[in-house]
Amino acid sequence: MKKLINHPDAVVDEMVEGYVAAYPQYVAVLPTNKRALIGTHERTQGKVGVVIGGGSGHEPAFMGLIGKGMADGVPVGNIFASPPPHPIVEVTKAIHSGAGVIYMYGNYAGDCMNFDMAAELADLEEGIRVETVLVTDDIASASENEMHRRRGIAGGFLVFKTAGAAAERGYALDEVVRVTRKANDRLRTMGVALAPCRIPQTGQPSFTLEEGEMEIGLGIHGEPGIQRGLIATADETADILLDAIIQELRLVQGDRVVVLVNGLGSTTRMELLITYRRVDTRLKALEVEIARSYVGEYVTSLEMGGCSLSIMKLDDELEDLIQDAADTPMFVQMR
Amino acid sequence: MKKLINHPDAVVDEMVEGYVAAYPQYVAVLPTNKRALIGTHERTQGKVGVVIGGGSGHEPAFMGLIGKGMADGVPVGNIFASPPPHPIVEVTKAIHSGAGVIYMYGNYAGDCMNFDMAAELADLEEGIRVETVLVTDDIASASENEMHRRRGIAGGFLVFKTAGAAAERGYALDEVVRVTRKANDRLRTMGVALAPCRIPQTGQPSFTLEEGEMEIGLGIHGEPGIQRGLIATADETADILLDAIIQELRLVQGDRVVVLVNGLGSTTRMELLITYRRVDTRLKALEVEIARSYVGEYVTSLEMGGCSLSIMKLDDELEDLIQDAADTPMFVQMR
Repeated sequence: MKKLINHPDAVVDEMVEGYVAAYPQYVAVLPTNKRALIGTHERTQGKVGVVIGGGSGHEPAFMGLIGKGMADGVPVGNIFASPPPHPIVEVTKAIHSGAGVIYMYGNYAGDCMNFDMAAELADLEEGIRVETVLVTDDIASASENEMHRRRGIAGGFLVFKTAGAAAERGYALDEVVRVTRKANDRLRTMGVALAPCRIPQTGQPSFTLEEGEMEIGLGIHGEPGIQRGLIATADETADILLDAIIQELRLVQGDRVVVLVNGLGSTTRMELLITYRRVDTRLKALEVEIARSYVGEYVTSLEMGGCSLSIMKLDDELEDLIQDAADTPMFVQMR
Repeated sequence: MKKLINHPDAVVDEMVEGYVAAYPQYVAVLPTNKRALIGTHERTQGKVGVVIGGGSGHEPAFMGLIGKGMADGVPVGNIFASPPPHPIVEVTKAIHSGAGVIYMYGNYAGDCMNFDMAAELADLEEGIRVETVLVTDDIASASENEMHRRRGIAGGFLVFKTAGAAAERGYALDEVVRVTRKANDRLRTMGVALAPCRIPQTGQPSFTLEEGEMEIGLGIHGEPGIQRGLIATADETADILLDAIIQELRLVQGDRVVVLVNGLGSTTRMELLITYRRVDTRLKALEVEIARSYVGEYVTSLEMGGCSLSIMKLDDELEDLIQDAADTPMFVQMR
């Protein structure tokens, strides 16, 4: 395992220290908890607070997305592990501006438990109303009639973007929750893995794939996928991902979408763009309109090889929110 | 070699097609040449034209940096190979707004030959005045008294940023050249490689490193470095890079700098941030002020493993230009 680290047990703390040092104009760590990060941007009184989080190793998610128009705060977990309740509560209290707080994270047991506990504590201790929207975009993780069992993967970025913009516009908490749920409901992701990552503390690969193999639907922590086979071309791979998404979203002529081709870690932008090319060609042939595209690393799994494709079916409200400006250390968008 | 591609000979063309399809709000390919990309942003009459370029495989450089405040156009070469004169000339003509054009690229023989030829043709055919600033930031590529032989690597991003901002502010060509030369003169980079990349057409690693080894100063096309040894900790590695830069830039208390920790391809942001942490600690101990930091992928070598550290010693003019806004598909900054 070749990594630029100092000690496997120190990677998350040192990453956070490096992050706060690199972007003091955006983020600060709370004096009470070194895993509790908040944005230094102005939070208008009465703005809904936006908290996202989860394990480390998915950078730029989650901590890279703190800033105006995205998240107000992020509790930081260990690698691929939920943060405990304490930093979540600390972040919640610090960013609350009187209008309640929305929590968003991928649908994993550990995250659900810890964030739920934090929400209770925030209510109990300071009367802060917290609502939660789980990200459940991963098609491969459960069948369509068990949506509540689906995991959250890269599409979460678009859910966070929607909520961040709605909060910034001054939506009340119930309205932020409504539009964020809608964003998640109209979003699907499917991924393909080409190579594992290695967790610093174990040095072991997160899964094994033979030299010529790829696996469809493999989760961002190495959860098993749905189909393993010989590595296909970029076009064939894009088709597999896209076919599943088109079918579930029932995409038809005239629909408008946002497309995200997300790199899992070591896959080059060249490959992501080649993959995007096929998605674009296919959607144009269907006369589905692409309102905006994102191609790059948004939710990674350390240096895993592969990518995921996310598509959100837009309505006017979602499209408007997705196009809003955002200003964070690892994602900036001008309107 | 596991890559999401269709055919090794098609990767650059398909990447460009995917790129233009993904970002129509930013870029277009010229009808006369499929390797000639220009920005769709407004170019005021009398603004100096900014052209950057070089081989592919360094994404987001160069084509990802087309947009307001950065480059107006980019001729695209094959992987790790200079573009020929023709697309350079086409781009130059297309983006010229009457105030001349600046070319910037890394100091490699192929690029120098092709861009020089293009500059002559642009002058001959349309009387366009072209000036060139070579990027020569790589400390490891030649000694300090042979600066003109040094290669250009990741620091080029900061040179392009400077020129893009100066042109956007309406500086005349001579002034853009002056400040851009100054940016390059006050800039140093040193890199470390942990793992090679594979060029799609050959499938061969660009160099070999044993499992426990790293190489200091290895070039972004696999050019030999200056020191090979056992992989060190992130802090030790950062110190090697930083010591060389501090010495050449003669950094002393009170100096102001911009810092860029650049990932070469497969190195995680976690590792880049841990590396940054050490740089930050050291510079603060020296009482050198960090005006702005960039941590991420700016100039890659496909999926090479490792990173580089760039530092530019600022004066008021450079600091102001570096802080200016930019809006491109792969780099956005708000002022």
